[in-house]
Amino acid sequence: MLRNPLLVPDLRELLQAGETEGLRDFFGDQHPAHVAEMIEDMEEAEGDSILALLPDRLQAEVMSYVDHNRQVRVVEAMTPVQAAGLFHFMSHDDRADLVNRLDEDRVDQILRNLAQTEREDIRRLASYEEGTAGAVMTTDYATLTPGITVREALTRLRHEAPDRETIDYSFVIDPHHKLEGIVPLKRLIMASPRSLIEEIMQRDMIVGRVDEDQEAVARKIDKYDLFAIPVLDANDVLVGIVTHDDAMDILRREQTEDILKFGGVSADPEADNAPYWQSGIVGVVRRRLPWLMMLLLAENFTYPVLRYFQWVGDKVKDIDLFIPLLIGTGGNAGSQTVGTIIRGLSLNEIERGDTWKVLLRECLTGLCLGLMLGSIGLFYAHFWRGQPWPLAELVGITILCICVWANTIGALVPLVAKRLGIDPAVISAPFITTLVDATGLVIYFEVAIIIFHPSSH
Amino acid sequence: MLRNPLLVPDLRELLQAGETEGLRDFFGDQHPAHVAEMIEDMEEAEGDSILALLPDRLQAEVMSYVDHNRQVRVVEAMTPVQAAGLFHFMSHDDRADLVNRLDEDRVDQILRNLAQTEREDIRRLASYEEGTAGAVMTTDYATLTPGITVREALTRLRHEAPDRETIDYSFVIDPHHKLEGIVPLKRLIMASPRSLIEEIMQRDMIVGRVDEDQEAVARKIDKYDLFAIPVLDANDVLVGIVTHDDAMDILRREQTEDILKFGGVSADPEADNAPYWQSGIVGVVRRRLPWLMMLLLAENFTYPVLRYFQWVGDKVKDIDLFIPLLIGTGGNAGSQTVGTIIRGLSLNEIERGDTWKVLLRECLTGLCLGLMLGSIGLFYAHFWRGQPWPLAELVGITILCICVWANTIGALVPLVAKRLGIDPAVISAPFITTLVDATGLVIYFEVAIIIFHPSSH
Repeated sequence: MLRNPLLVPDLRELLQAGETEGLRDFFGDQHPAHVAEMIEDMEEAEGDSILALLPDRLQAEVMSYVDHNRQVRVVEAMTPVQAAGLFHFMSHDDRADLVNRLDEDRVDQILRNLAQTEREDIRRLASYEEGTAGAVMTTDYATLTPGITVREALTRLRHEAPDRETIDYSFVIDPHHKLEGIVPLKRLIMASPRSLIEEIMQRDMIVGRVDEDQEAVARKIDKYDLFAIPVLDANDVLVGIVTHDDAMDILRREQTEDILKFGGVSADPEADNAPYWQSGIVGVVRRRLPWLMMLLLAENFTYPVLRYFQWVGDKVKDIDLFIPLLIGTGGNAGSQTVGTIIRGLSLNEIERGDTWKVLLRECLTGLCLGLMLGSIGLFYAHFWRGQPWPLAELVGITILCICVWANTIGALVPLVAKRLGIDPAVISAPFITTLVDATGLVIYFEVAIIIFHPSSH
Repeated sequence: MLRNPLLVPDLRELLQAGETEGLRDFFGDQHPAHVAEMIEDMEEAEGDSILALLPDRLQAEVMSYVDHNRQVRVVEAMTPVQAAGLFHFMSHDDRADLVNRLDEDRVDQILRNLAQTEREDIRRLASYEEGTAGAVMTTDYATLTPGITVREALTRLRHEAPDRETIDYSFVIDPHHKLEGIVPLKRLIMASPRSLIEEIMQRDMIVGRVDEDQEAVARKIDKYDLFAIPVLDANDVLVGIVTHDDAMDILRREQTEDILKFGGVSADPEADNAPYWQSGIVGVVRRRLPWLMMLLLAENFTYPVLRYFQWVGDKVKDIDLFIPLLIGTGGNAGSQTVGTIIRGLSLNEIERGDTWKVLLRECLTGLCLGLMLGSIGLFYAHFWRGQPWPLAELVGITILCICVWANTIGALVPLVAKRLGIDPAVISAPFITTLVDATGLVIYFEVAIIIFHPSSH
């Protein structure tokens, strides 16, 4: 069932022996992603050679699976005519992306060899703003008109199928290219051949807009379990489709991006979408430094707090020894809460009207956690660290207060951010942690003053 | 094109006036997800009533989109015969999930009203272990045999289509139900009616295994841009399929779960998959407490370090004032690094052989960041906080060392975890932060000793 893949060394032999026909035959039946994998496993130059000698359609399919640097390299090694042939067979969204990575002069040379409609399609797709539906959509979808019969439609689709990304869904358009309905292939083969398309088409459609954020469009595809979503411009004219596989890629990238933001790396969408190795160290430093500087600025508030309460430290022996432990715990509790809230917001489980309920819930959770951890802290400070009861009580009470406080802040900040239209995942764990640190110290020392009544002079 | 949705108040009127036919007509054309949304927007009892009076097929489709609690409530309000009818039309994977939420006795009553094959199907699907492909796959796919013609195949599919989740792909099986090939509907309509299935079917297939982790299967669907993946048992017998929309749901849940782990919430798969509101506060506390306790334990290492170096603090004025700021910065730098590494690992940009390259890269990044932040710290301590140069130099040098150290740790821990087969996302930011805190203090005081040469007695 699953064919044994030809091992890379065997492939190398075929390549060196110039057995191009043998190579073409071998690859002919493989999934393009498998072919791409084999190419990646070889030496760079060998992989490029293999890619260059694949038959047209397969080459175009495999191109979509290889990394962007290789795509650019291979195209730059081709003649303009060869490259134009590749573009002709490539899926429309992938070739537009590739064009955006090539040198402008080179692109002109290549496009000169294509028909005008194709040239215009490539230019148009490549011009959409990064991050929008327009930038990820493809234009090789099948269209039908409402007045034709099912038999005529099937004939048309049979004819167009080789050039279309998909014919599993056809899009029914009026003379102005406005979308009127959608016809799943399933429905076509089940219908009587004499029915008209307008009789069987699905009119209730979920659509995307060409300037809509690509993550929003991907979420629609996810929510409605769509195979593909039609993309319309401001005049309701159909301009492209986004397919489920692209949606999955979008969501995967955006969600790993959230992990980055959550870890406090600069929230720069273009850089975040870059692969790990792509930026040089200078680029990485440039991305991380702003946040670290900002957090350093925020963290510096602990200094005046400590200075202000320094006299308490002078009066109460060993009070300083617990500081990192206490604010560390506050930071951890806040971090947990932020993660939970961000997830709840991102899965739409927490909605607009829920703010007070969430705060109450997190506050109570902090109370319970604080009571338990505070008890642990109390006994830890006295029995393990040998501190007298007053100091141990201080530690216990502070842990309790810090947990309540950190949970409340950890919930409040992402909720407020969401309300203000800021991406809550940008409110990273470090940000919350830092907020909790300075205020946690205030709590510690104020409670200490209450417990120890040190005289200040 | 997009129909104006009937407003919920109007819907309520129709319901109260008993206009069931009107309601059925209205809903007839809506996407089931839209219907589910409208139901969620209504009062609970009203929503349940609407759901109950939908026509069979639509009701079954809408059931897949409503939340699990409502599913259970509605089924429990039905008679066993009605519920059996619902099960008959529901997609096979969703009904198996629903069965697992119902009371065992009730399930027996309901299943008694179904044909044996259906009963067995439900029982089998419901028995697969949570988190495996078996637990998410569905069994309502279309099968063909290799020896029939395309014409016969199309006739068969037309007949079966209403009962199948999808006929966009048909699975070709031998007499033992072993998978031989896959036939996209597109290929069927393009082929000559007299061709045999075995001549046109696709033999090179990507498959999943029934006990395979569901995330692994979803990633295959993502990687190969599949519409659906066939799932086989240990004998290569086809037992079900997982579709792209289920894959998207799986990946979405698993990735938001990563945010939770990264924030330091307990990595409990079952609980993490639960919606935000589902657990009571006790449940939430139970999930977060273990981690907080563990982190408290880890953080407590700062205590003996501070005690050990307490004498340095007594000798060097104001040295304590910078402590939270320094270890906070270390924690932030480590947090950034961990997030970046986790992302790189999860997108497979960082591979096994890359460990040393990554460490070197992160170490150098830490060096650059540390040099810049250290300079800022130096000038901050002297000019803003008025400390003498030696202490300011201590702060600057410590920031430098801590950045290099935190970046190295932040890269090393997830890489080692991955090597050991532990999920690196579990190595949450709080864990790294805590590791960096105690060691950061050691660095601070050791450098202080070098700079200040305090005499110890």
